[in-house]
Amino acid sequence: MSAQPDLDLSSDVLALTRALVDAPSVSGSETALADAVESALRALGGLEVERVGDAVLARTNLDRPTRVVLAGHLDTVPIADNVPSRLDVATGRLYGCGTSDMKSGDAVMLRLAAVFGVPGAQPAHDLTFVFYDNEEVESVKNGLGRVARERRGWLYGDLAILLEPTDGEIEAGCQGTLRAVLSTTGRRAHSARSWLGENAIHGLSGALAALAAYRPREVEIDGCTYREGLNAVGISGGVAGNVIPDESALTVNFRYAPDRDEDAAEAHVREVFADATASGATLTVVDNAGGALPGLAEPAAAAFVAAAGRPARAKLGWTDVARFAAFGIPAINYGPGDPQLAHTREEHVLVDRLQPAVDALTAYLSRSSS
Amino acid sequence: MSAQPDLDLSSDVLALTRALVDAPSVSGSETALADAVESALRALGGLEVERVGDAVLARTNLDRPTRVVLAGHLDTVPIADNVPSRLDVATGRLYGCGTSDMKSGDAVMLRLAAVFGVPGAQPAHDLTFVFYDNEEVESVKNGLGRVARERRGWLYGDLAILLEPTDGEIEAGCQGTLRAVLSTTGRRAHSARSWLGENAIHGLSGALAALAAYRPREVEIDGCTYREGLNAVGISGGVAGNVIPDESALTVNFRYAPDRDEDAAEAHVREVFADATASGATLTVVDNAGGALPGLAEPAAAAFVAAAGRPARAKLGWTDVARFAAFGIPAINYGPGDPQLAHTREEHVLVDRLQPAVDALTAYLSRSSS
Repeated sequence: MSAQPDLDLSSDVLALTRALVDAPSVSGSETALADAVESALRALGGLEVERVGDAVLARTNLDRPTRVVLAGHLDTVPIADNVPSRLDVATGRLYGCGTSDMKSGDAVMLRLAAVFGVPGAQPAHDLTFVFYDNEEVESVKNGLGRVARERRGWLYGDLAILLEPTDGEIEAGCQGTLRAVLSTTGRRAHSARSWLGENAIHGLSGALAALAAYRPREVEIDGCTYREGLNAVGISGGVAGNVIPDESALTVNFRYAPDRDEDAAEAHVREVFADATASGATLTVVDNAGGALPGLAEPAAAAFVAAAGRPARAKLGWTDVARFAAFGIPAINYGPGDPQLAHTREEHVLVDRLQPAVDALTAYLSRSSS
Repeated sequence: MSAQPDLDLSSDVLALTRALVDAPSVSGSETALADAVESALRALGGLEVERVGDAVLARTNLDRPTRVVLAGHLDTVPIADNVPSRLDVATGRLYGCGTSDMKSGDAVMLRLAAVFGVPGAQPAHDLTFVFYDNEEVESVKNGLGRVARERRGWLYGDLAILLEPTDGEIEAGCQGTLRAVLSTTGRRAHSARSWLGENAIHGLSGALAALAAYRPREVEIDGCTYREGLNAVGISGGVAGNVIPDESALTVNFRYAPDRDEDAAEAHVREVFADATASGATLTVVDNAGGALPGLAEPAAAAFVAAAGRPARAKLGWTDVARFAAFGIPAINYGPGDPQLAHTREEHVLVDRLQPAVDALTAYLSRSSS
């Protein structure tokens, strides 16, 4: 498995997807596949290529007025008896780990590189390709984050397109996500003498009431509707069946529209739980990742939507597009995979989604956005 | 340790307590000690003795108009490096497993048997002694419960005195205890699309609000104040940090005054949570043990309080007195041990509490209650 897989960028997008899936690259083990991608991109002859750990960066330098960044991660979640790939001709499905998330997207990128990354090619925009590692694991290992820290200049552009699975839809921007813990403390006592204690679980009553009464916003930005949500995702407390509990904790997750930044999101959550914290609960934000504005008013983004011929909708989950948005770059999710199938044993991609994705992007990259 | 310990009922109550403590009898391993108790009681000559498993029953049959039942369990919680007993003369403490809970109480009973269970003795009341097994473990194994099922007639009397530790106070009756689980169900969804789910934790909001707003009763019965309490003792829910949870559960413990029976207690709890259950929560009673009325208006009980020369107070925790109360027998807790020390590694009894308990009971049992 560590032998370098062979990638023939002149083959079709289905064959390329299969070749990528058949080269296992679970997070942390992407080196062989990154080597193959790097070799194939260098061989094209029209790209500046740089390697940063197991991320592979490649770009044209044609002095176009605009630059489009295409990004995809090379890693997958652990294999679940679903490698090598299996093509079911009857249903038109290609099964295998990474088929949806997101080696089909990587294959689309490689096809575009094969077309626009050769000497003499004339794309309407300069292009940057970012293939990166460790997207499926803890954020601190994320290869795109590492590139942003160590080679920030490589990520600049007028539009970033992340080829994560969207089922062929254009999903613009992404929502932010904040997790916080509301914790209460009390005093233990035997439950037969409960007045000697102070019940920490009862102390969460106000916080739960605030959640139950919460009415989330819907925000329209650039024609995309972002629907927020504030939810309990965990609750715990209790010592024994006859003991007044002295500790309890409620974990909440706030998914917020990208018109709020991280500070505004935290301020909002603190406001929602102001009564609870005034009554003694402690609110601790445990993680907070801002979202990404859709940026569809930007010409480069609007042109892509026009070229794809379908309306953009809001991306609700958090994705790596937020890393581009942090630099003020409009960012879009657009990929052939099915997000519902990601990380499942039955992961597959519909074969007839692959070439249309290549075609839509080729059309977009072939004509000027102005 | 399985050799039969030697019990000399003519020795003083301290020596008897030590002999009992030095004969280990963790729940389920009471046979050797029960054998010794049975032999010693038979040897007295004035008692009818019966053995029921590891419970030892003994009684006088003097045709007195009234009968007093004295009860104590022979078993202890597991030993914690605190056997054999250790007498600290400087502080007047006898240390060891069971010193408080409740071999000092058993020793008091054996001293009373030695006085009133011999031929020619003239107690004011007929007496029944119940030494039983398995009090410290699950209720289904409880030896007093077994006696109640298999030899109910042995438990009848005008007053029952349980020699559980009360620090020398008279604690009348006991409160009931009910545990119930309020559970909610919902529908899982990704927290980025929370409106596709239904949050089971939010579903507990009404139940927690009911608890936080609950104002417990204080009830005075026969001069004893029973203070109730309704408390959360556990709460749980949550699947993952990005998932709307589909299950949550809140466990509550209701400690109730003995003027409510089990059905009334359950009805009250259901009323408290009526809004919560109307909103979809399910309330399941998982255990419910009724309390015991103090019965201090009964002449036999009033006479004991008078003999002891101190006011009775309410017993708040649930104890085996409720098993007597179930037959309509007034029941009192009165023992030399300290309930705060029960089940601790530092368990001990104050030596100067032992003889006064023997004296108070001897005085009571020596004179007519009418």
